[in-house]
Amino acid sequence: MNNSRDEDALVREIARHFLPSSGRGLRLGIGDDAALWKPKPGFASILTSDWFLEGSHFLREKHPPDSVGWKCLARAASDIAAMGGTPRCFLLNLALPAASTGKWLNSFLLGLRRAAKSLDCVLAGGDTTRSQRILISVTVIGEIRQGRELLRSGARSGDLLYVSGVPGEAEYGLRLLRKSRGRMNPKNEALRKHLYPEPRVALGRWLAERKLATAMMDLSDGLSSDLARMCAASGVGAQVDAGKLPLPHGIDPGSGGELALHGGDDYELLFSVPPRGVSRLPANFRGLRLTQIGEITAGSGVRVFGRDGKLEPLRAAGWDPFRQEK
Amino acid sequence: MNNSRDEDALVREIARHFLPSSGRGLRLGIGDDAALWKPKPGFASILTSDWFLEGSHFLREKHPPDSVGWKCLARAASDIAAMGGTPRCFLLNLALPAASTGKWLNSFLLGLRRAAKSLDCVLAGGDTTRSQRILISVTVIGEIRQGRELLRSGARSGDLLYVSGVPGEAEYGLRLLRKSRGRMNPKNEALRKHLYPEPRVALGRWLAERKLATAMMDLSDGLSSDLARMCAASGVGAQVDAGKLPLPHGIDPGSGGELALHGGDDYELLFSVPPRGVSRLPANFRGLRLTQIGEITAGSGVRVFGRDGKLEPLRAAGWDPFRQEK
Repeated sequence: MNNSRDEDALVREIARHFLPSSGRGLRLGIGDDAALWKPKPGFASILTSDWFLEGSHFLREKHPPDSVGWKCLARAASDIAAMGGTPRCFLLNLALPAASTGKWLNSFLLGLRRAAKSLDCVLAGGDTTRSQRILISVTVIGEIRQGRELLRSGARSGDLLYVSGVPGEAEYGLRLLRKSRGRMNPKNEALRKHLYPEPRVALGRWLAERKLATAMMDLSDGLSSDLARMCAASGVGAQVDAGKLPLPHGIDPGSGGELALHGGDDYELLFSVPPRGVSRLPANFRGLRLTQIGEITAGSGVRVFGRDGKLEPLRAAGWDPFRQEK
Repeated sequence: MNNSRDEDALVREIARHFLPSSGRGLRLGIGDDAALWKPKPGFASILTSDWFLEGSHFLREKHPPDSVGWKCLARAASDIAAMGGTPRCFLLNLALPAASTGKWLNSFLLGLRRAAKSLDCVLAGGDTTRSQRILISVTVIGEIRQGRELLRSGARSGDLLYVSGVPGEAEYGLRLLRKSRGRMNPKNEALRKHLYPEPRVALGRWLAERKLATAMMDLSDGLSSDLARMCAASGVGAQVDAGKLPLPHGIDPGSGGELALHGGDDYELLFSVPPRGVSRLPANFRGLRLTQIGEITAGSGVRVFGRDGKLEPLRAAGWDPFRQEK
């Protein structure tokens, strides 16, 4: 902890973790008024910006600072993956209490750097200031070959609906973390998924390059909320078969099913594939499970074919900061 | 005020103020996982992201919400102007208490929209969530013809140092606002400068296109702090002639001089011009005063030639959130 550390010193401390601050299309990084960026010829830029706030998106006393660093970048990069693009550089806006500029900041930067290396995504700039709570806003810039972007709006009736990985696993990890006292087993799969989610960049790019999917988005708020958004954007409905949903390991089917439908923070990909494309889709993409969980229908609204055999409307009950109690 | 307004509705409310959300290089705006952007051929993108936080950058009880909307975009766009570029689109991350989603939000969006129109800068996306205080993070994407960018690092010994407008005026406006009880005269020049600063986009672009300046940056934290940054980046020193500084209207030279040297939030441009270029520089650029305030020197450090005739080191005493008392 160092109360006299001024803003320029803090910027240098951050920059030190991320040298060199150029390459991969980034012409000029940290240190000037702004950064200069140019994607490869024939590519367009993808822009996305996400909050990551103490109290809303993480708890200072529960989440290790290196997880906060990893996840704030990973979840923003997931929006790039959801278009079929590749993250290239990012801007970090960081507001900190004085008490967090020492050990907390260092561990945060180590986690952030690990995510940046894993994603091959370079720090391009940002802004630092002081605040009572830890506030983070991350902007990621990616690139995509022109015309290959996968939007939410392309799903058509008859398309089959797929999801990567195990939706609900991250929320299950959060529950374990909330209940825990002291240190948890860091090898627990659900906990790892919650603390260090891996954006599905390779899968998204593969689907986009081969034009295999008609629509795609990432699961951030929960399947029930996010699928409703895809359907609204595409002007279609959807039917989910609850029995097909992969369930988090070590949980009974009842709670697991609820988590799979409504749990947030997964950063898995949800995508629709026309029947003619299904045979080209593997059951596993580089070790990542791909599951057909339902189909796109005419009309509107999302229905779920439950484990009890009933077909019912699926209520959008994923995470919504303006609906939930704080 | 509407506690049950959910996140999707809030996003729609914001989007409604900014239609159409495309054009000017923005291929795809609000509504998908991310935005798609491509500058004109032969141009690179400029990226910048800034905090604008209640309690640090504005006071909810003192600053009209439309000023908060105007200024959060204007100050981020100023970083684009400081490179010689043109702002094109922006991402808005907004976190609000429930009590601010009604009237406050509406007035905020009107001010933001006015700034966006004035700058011809389109809303491309962002993120919304709930928080106890009003938190804003704005990312602006601009464009610049390749190779024309004006960096902080290009100043050379012998260059003359210029500033646009009246540095210190915005800080003077803030003092008036802090002292005020109730409504102030909205036509007061210093107050307007504080509440609705105008990024110097046209001037920056003009200097960059003509390659008139060797280095440029915007004044955000105050001349004494910002000039020191330019000198450090360029590996030079500078000498400022305090007697040449234009002073805010209606203030004595003593306090005015202090404000001109250390006052923040001006968003004027500071730039260096080689002697051969000086004759091409007008005293006024489209009504905006340009003043030669000193020169770039060999060595390092900034000195000021005071009104008392003494040459002294200029202490960097502009705004620094990590140094100042909150």
